[in-house]
Amino acid sequence: MPLAVVNCGEIVTVAGPARPRIRDEMKNLSIVRGGAMLVREGRIESIGPQMELKAHIADEYEIVDAGGRTVLPGFVDAHTHPVFAGTRADEYEMRAGGATYEQIAKEGGGIRSTVRKTRAASEEDLFETALGRSQWFLRVGTTTIEAKSGYGLTLESELRILRVICRLGAENRLRIVPTFLGAHEVPDEYRGRTGDYIDLVVREMLPAVASAGLAEYCDVFCEPGIFNGEAALRILGAARELGLGIRMHADQLSRSGAAEIAALAGAATADHLEQIDARGIEALAHAGVQPVLLPASVYTLGSKRFAPAREMIDAGLAVVLATDFNPGSSPTPSMPFVLSLASTQTRMTPAEALTAATINAAYSLGRGSEIGSLEPGKQADFVIHDCRDYREIPYFVGLEPAYETYLGGRLVYSRHDRP
Amino acid sequence: MPLAVVNCGEIVTVAGPARPRIRDEMKNLSIVRGGAMLVREGRIESIGPQMELKAHIADEYEIVDAGGRTVLPGFVDAHTHPVFAGTRADEYEMRAGGATYEQIAKEGGGIRSTVRKTRAASEEDLFETALGRSQWFLRVGTTTIEAKSGYGLTLESELRILRVICRLGAENRLRIVPTFLGAHEVPDEYRGRTGDYIDLVVREMLPAVASAGLAEYCDVFCEPGIFNGEAALRILGAARELGLGIRMHADQLSRSGAAEIAALAGAATADHLEQIDARGIEALAHAGVQPVLLPASVYTLGSKRFAPAREMIDAGLAVVLATDFNPGSSPTPSMPFVLSLASTQTRMTPAEALTAATINAAYSLGRGSEIGSLEPGKQADFVIHDCRDYREIPYFVGLEPAYETYLGGRLVYSRHDRP
Repeated sequence: MPLAVVNCGEIVTVAGPARPRIRDEMKNLSIVRGGAMLVREGRIESIGPQMELKAHIADEYEIVDAGGRTVLPGFVDAHTHPVFAGTRADEYEMRAGGATYEQIAKEGGGIRSTVRKTRAASEEDLFETALGRSQWFLRVGTTTIEAKSGYGLTLESELRILRVICRLGAENRLRIVPTFLGAHEVPDEYRGRTGDYIDLVVREMLPAVASAGLAEYCDVFCEPGIFNGEAALRILGAARELGLGIRMHADQLSRSGAAEIAALAGAATADHLEQIDARGIEALAHAGVQPVLLPASVYTLGSKRFAPAREMIDAGLAVVLATDFNPGSSPTPSMPFVLSLASTQTRMTPAEALTAATINAAYSLGRGSEIGSLEPGKQADFVIHDCRDYREIPYFVGLEPAYETYLGGRLVYSRHDRP
Repeated sequence: MPLAVVNCGEIVTVAGPARPRIRDEMKNLSIVRGGAMLVREGRIESIGPQMELKAHIADEYEIVDAGGRTVLPGFVDAHTHPVFAGTRADEYEMRAGGATYEQIAKEGGGIRSTVRKTRAASEEDLFETALGRSQWFLRVGTTTIEAKSGYGLTLESELRILRVICRLGAENRLRIVPTFLGAHEVPDEYRGRTGDYIDLVVREMLPAVASAGLAEYCDVFCEPGIFNGEAALRILGAARELGLGIRMHADQLSRSGAAEIAALAGAATADHLEQIDARGIEALAHAGVQPVLLPASVYTLGSKRFAPAREMIDAGLAVVLATDFNPGSSPTPSMPFVLSLASTQTRMTPAEALTAATINAAYSLGRGSEIGSLEPGKQADFVIHDCRDYREIPYFVGLEPAYETYLGGRLVYSRHDRP
């Protein structure tokens, strides 16, 4: 049944040129006030002032009354690690008590503790936990997530995680873009034999992942002492030959030149970049790599050093914002919170942040023509937020603003409080 | 009908000595695992392991099944400004674009813009807006708020705001402690005549507020250039004579010695304190003034300078955390977000933060024997949070963790998502 979404106080379409938005384009949200939107077969048919569209709303349409609320494209969260067992609330407490992330990692905590728990979990348990968490994304207005493996670090467990990710996508509640991140950390059994582990990733994991069609992208955690630039180039080169796209964790903990490696590798994105400098920014700009900024991990780790968002926008980079949802450094699934961080801590305006969280994120995942904005022909992935002004979404931080979330024109989340 | 809350994964009682908690006491949450709680006539009858209480759950009890979730006392938010017209999302955007709070205030923005809108609003409109926002507090697990006036700054409009605050309390959904904050700012019509405005506050507003019984506390925004120490002492002294308790905005924007003024005035609390030094901390400790820390306003203003929470705890202060909910510097009603800020930005552990947000906050409002912990005889103000470990409440930041919120044993909020 086709849908007519009526009485929208504002529809923030984020419509614009068919490419990632840069510089002042990031401020232009193409807002329709007093609008309506028609949806047919899961796609947007038309958007415009309600007065103009009224004549086209025939009896066949199911009416969705937005009640004067704000309608946005669903957030596209382009960097998450959503499949893991357990939490790391204990380490969170230790950090609050003064321990550093590095100290905790040295004592067997950090990623390795999640790897132990995740390896020990059954595929069914991993799926049930991840399915529960997928509801959190809908609750905050996210309709697409990029989802990385990387807490298995064996052939079998990485494939298991990727199967869970693909099964989540098959539920059709949240769109999922799967990414293979076998090179997330060197597992304990390969300590001191990083080269052997890279061989495993390149010779066994990557071909198995690719032949099973379990991932669209390959990511590497590029950091000196873990996977250096050479290792990253080898893994990403192999991934590219197998037809996978490329993403990269770069310049997070140190300025190692990982941004330049991402540029050299032809990556779609370089993610984190808290330590990047002007040369690194230039390299990304030159190669057309999109930076994916993850301010919630900076916040969670209690660091003050956010990635230089303004310098990147000024340099013409098509900036993306994402949650980095993971149990260690960023246990938040909330894009509204990330928008708040971007505005209060990195001086991105709410409009720039919203562009980074929707259309630019969609392009970074190769889906710019399908999702990320509300335009005729695109997927009807939209959210009715319980506010009258999209700026209230970062402003009233700490709330879940979504009132109803739609994926391909189908209601996948609806908030009904009592009494 | 009496209630039996059963199948609680953990009940975080925060039980302990009948006074504000200091130093290591702040870490001791007195958690009952596998617990149950009996409630009769709005008060807690008993709490203990379910195995022990089982025999006492007679047929007359209505069963509330917590499903293994975590039960906490409702948060007590001891510093909010919840009655105002409009938002300041436009100024939020300007600040993200680089303007400072001070620049915006100079151009007629800031508190004064909210004062203009609030003066122009009808009592009914103010009430409806505030009632809608009161739901936000319940959604995040808050059951009591201290609520300040201060966006009217005329006799008539301050009384109107306080009537709205008291009406909110009479709805019996959220407990409200009303505070008169006529000395929030010098209104435009008194520019350059601060003395005359103080006269108005002392001679007309305070007696009218007290005789109408519209406030329990009086607060002053003590800051050089606005209300200095002398002005604060005069206003607070007059309030005390009228039987009101005393709170004070102190040492927020500059280190002016306001903490010492609060100590001298015998204030229950000194709030903000981002600029306090060791001498100020000593003065508070000596006088038994509780510091109310408001990290969300530091966050929102993009400042890095949080109040020195650890030094205060070490000095034996009974620290309180609150949201400072207001349209300018802290548009968040979320105590879970404040707990997250406390843990990630000021190195309070989740346990210390929870104590500061419940029992210590209750004592700061003169209600330590009634609310703030789950102990026999106290009000049954409790929240079933959708987690298995209270530490997940700050950890999974950006979500609304409350599943069901109870005030005096009565369900006042329940989350039911669809589909």
